[in-house]
Amino acid sequence: MEEHIHHDDAHEHMHTHGNAHSHGHVHENQKAVVNRLARAIGHLEKVKRMVEEGYDCSEVLVQLAAVRSALDNTGKVILKDHIRHCMVDAVIGGDEDAIDDLCLSIDKFMK
Amino acid sequence: MEEHIHHDDAHEHMHTHGNAHSHGHVHENQKAVVNRLARAIGHLEKVKRMVEEGYDCSEVLVQLAAVRSALDNTGKVILKDHIRHCMVDAVIGGDEDAIDDLCLSIDKFMK
Repeated sequence: MEEHIHHDDAHEHMHTHGNAHSHGHVHENQKAVVNRLARAIGHLEKVKRMVEEGYDCSEVLVQLAAVRSALDNTGKVILKDHIRHCMVDAVIGGDEDAIDDLCLSIDKFMK
Repeated sequence: MEEHIHHDDAHEHMHTHGNAHSHGHVHENQKAVVNRLARAIGHLEKVKRMVEEGYDCSEVLVQLAAVRSALDNTGKVILKDHIRHCMVDAVIGGDEDAIDDLCLSIDKFMK
């Protein structure tokens, strides 16, 4: 699978600040989240092929909605994991930045 | 005519009845839609790597929301293309199935 990365800044960011964003926490569902994302990627590749092959738009939309729904559910898993494992520590440690960051990302994720 | 697609065997179906669901219409934005999907796949692969590398959950959620938003916009492009090029013909040809199909997929896509 060829990569089509166009978000150079984010990619660079990943390498230059690789550990800056890591909490070092164990996320119990990390593997499940990775698997969900891998399935969503596979599903999206299928949708792309459907468009390339001129599939019916209605059918493409149904499949696209299924991928979106899968991403929503993955986001919920991440969020719940985060609340269980990171937020509790942040509250105990008085890390208000972490709490603000989470609230901000909830805003962005749920709009 | 042709059987309707079942989600489980969509991939197999694609090869055995590749053109069954094609309208034969020109979709002016087909290439743009394929490009959008390719970018979304690349972005989602990046999100997956972020999770694997233990990135901050808030940051992962923001990126996941960006992918979801990209899929929403792609769906809108498909829908508008469909209305412009397929629905008009369906209405002229009295193809009520096509109209019902579209309404059903809008329900699914917009929920």
